[in-house]
Amino acid sequence: MLSQLETPALLLDEKRMYRNIQRMQKRMDLFGVKFRPHAKTSKCPEVVRRQIAAGAKGITVSTLKEAERFHAAGIEDILYAVAIAPAKFGHALKLIQSGLKLTLLVESVAAAKELTQFGIDQRQQFDVLIEVDTDNHRSGIAPEAPLLLDVANALRVDGRYGAQLRGVMTHAGSSYALHSEEDLVAMAEQERVGCVRAAHRLRSAGYLCDVVSVGSTPTALSARSLDGVTEVRAGVYVFFDLVMAEIGICKKEDIALSVLCTVIGHRPQAGWIITDGGWMAMSRDRGTQKQPHDYGYGLVCDIAGSPIESLVFNEANQEHGVLTWRGDTSVDIEQRFPIGSQIRVVPNHACATGAQHAAYQVLPIDGNLLATWSRFSGW
Amino acid sequence: MLSQLETPALLLDEKRMYRNIQRMQKRMDLFGVKFRPHAKTSKCPEVVRRQIAAGAKGITVSTLKEAERFHAAGIEDILYAVAIAPAKFGHALKLIQSGLKLTLLVESVAAAKELTQFGIDQRQQFDVLIEVDTDNHRSGIAPEAPLLLDVANALRVDGRYGAQLRGVMTHAGSSYALHSEEDLVAMAEQERVGCVRAAHRLRSAGYLCDVVSVGSTPTALSARSLDGVTEVRAGVYVFFDLVMAEIGICKKEDIALSVLCTVIGHRPQAGWIITDGGWMAMSRDRGTQKQPHDYGYGLVCDIAGSPIESLVFNEANQEHGVLTWRGDTSVDIEQRFPIGSQIRVVPNHACATGAQHAAYQVLPIDGNLLATWSRFSGW
Repeated sequence: MLSQLETPALLLDEKRMYRNIQRMQKRMDLFGVKFRPHAKTSKCPEVVRRQIAAGAKGITVSTLKEAERFHAAGIEDILYAVAIAPAKFGHALKLIQSGLKLTLLVESVAAAKELTQFGIDQRQQFDVLIEVDTDNHRSGIAPEAPLLLDVANALRVDGRYGAQLRGVMTHAGSSYALHSEEDLVAMAEQERVGCVRAAHRLRSAGYLCDVVSVGSTPTALSARSLDGVTEVRAGVYVFFDLVMAEIGICKKEDIALSVLCTVIGHRPQAGWIITDGGWMAMSRDRGTQKQPHDYGYGLVCDIAGSPIESLVFNEANQEHGVLTWRGDTSVDIEQRFPIGSQIRVVPNHACATGAQHAAYQVLPIDGNLLATWSRFSGW
Repeated sequence: MLSQLETPALLLDEKRMYRNIQRMQKRMDLFGVKFRPHAKTSKCPEVVRRQIAAGAKGITVSTLKEAERFHAAGIEDILYAVAIAPAKFGHALKLIQSGLKLTLLVESVAAAKELTQFGIDQRQQFDVLIEVDTDNHRSGIAPEAPLLLDVANALRVDGRYGAQLRGVMTHAGSSYALHSEEDLVAMAEQERVGCVRAAHRLRSAGYLCDVVSVGSTPTALSARSLDGVTEVRAGVYVFFDLVMAEIGICKKEDIALSVLCTVIGHRPQAGWIITDGGWMAMSRDRGTQKQPHDYGYGLVCDIAGSPIESLVFNEANQEHGVLTWRGDTSVDIEQRFPIGSQIRVVPNHACATGAQHAAYQVLPIDGNLLATWSRFSGW
């Protein structure tokens, strides 16, 4: 059936995805915390519906377009987990007025003040989390910083309108650079402790702080304790990818995405096999470049999904993949990988590769027929 | 007017694009060769119409979807410049049957034979070029290789049906790694000589070879002679980008694309400014990484488009840009770049950044109103 697909095409192994969803949800259920998957990875209602069916409580998004599309698909509780820019207040308001329970994020006095004023002006109450920084990775406020209370103070409800502080959230993005269980466990604990501490400071100062939200796929799968945490977020676990396998929190056999490509040429002297899957199909993400094993543009597999370790995807142009045969030099690569034959390439980074495609071609759990699940993109 | 755009948004400076189109077309007109722009860069009929209006004869595409969309937009003569996979023959046939003059590319005996047979079976004549490799960069057949004649021989017209050899084409992609005028001139000459030589060998062996097609943006703008060449192809020249500026064939002021982003946070101790334009908005393309100046994820400019040299875009997450202030430490970055303020980021690679967006927000040559030109993606 794959031979009938026009390549490059993004394949999704539903069975692997199902196992990944179950693994995370069961873990969170054991901890007794809510799980709020990050839908930026799939951007696909079919995927998110399965996460919700498994027990997830609401979702996380990285853009208001994701909020809009997932709300239209029936999701009612969404956290927009990027500090909101004032020019997006109107868009957020529209979504809330359409019935969405949308929670926003701030990390500055300026945004907190402007959002409060906007809520008062528009006669709307916004639910807000403060972003906490627990690993000096990106954005957010350090748990001990005076700024934390300044931002809380700048959020205000005037009568029924304004911006209501609901809690704190953090994302230990630096967990992506780790490779040992010991370091991952420590980072998960650092993420937990920092976020719980920020919540404690806010509560001690008299602020409401019901939500303590932490997460990244590596820390969610490594945490030994989630005491004080009310919800966990993770995105890429749903598909996994080579970056996650190199971190050590999944096996290569857990990765649910691959890109189906067709061989279109050879340069036998150089050992090159040319395919129609270039960086447009894989993305330019070279996430394994600094990891123990650099997979180039992805791990090359045969049509059944088994790795072909000797075939290295080391160069990519827009619509050409250049794979180099590093195996036995007696192999005739033109015969072994003939024109028209197909390969599958497992991606470095599921979020980036997925974003290059308009749909998943789904290898379903039961039955032989491929399903097509569309995904959206843009802002 | 930019302040009303929800960010991130892809901006296109029409005046710069117009100058870039004129520069290339005038150069090709002086040489007396046809110019066939590569539409994979813009994937936008509005852009391609302007290239045709300036004098381009037909276009080049990298996917059959591009062929389909541009034909629907009125383009009648298209070269699909990637060696065709047999599974795509049916799609190509449909396009030709719908009235498109579509030229295909082969570089193997296998594909040439299969296409010939498909043409005979389907009672269709396909126009075909053979891909020539002039720089050991990617795909194609070396000008002196016996294989060149084998492929020509495998292309055959049986009565009116089959596959008709029309000529040769090459792409000196290794020109992207050069930085001096001398090297660029030499590479352009190498590209020309190799392709003309392949054409000569084919003609000497009795084959038809009307088309001698060469090109890449750097070689097209560097060639001193195009003797024997019938057409030139180039794509990225229409917008240019930082990679092209580092190669030395355009100025930074010629670059027509930029991504509009909004400041959403600060980490003053680290000198970081956080924006809502991450790698999803810029792409993961780090094309300047190995060039003289590594621009990280792009060149940061103010809202008017003037570079802010001290602000370095060195880290990106999916929807977060992390910019580091490397200027005067006495500058208060929270005041200089307040929450809600906008910046523009000039991309490393126009093709890759463009592909992340569904539309161009066009700063028009005349008038103040932004226009929106949609672009497509996928296969």
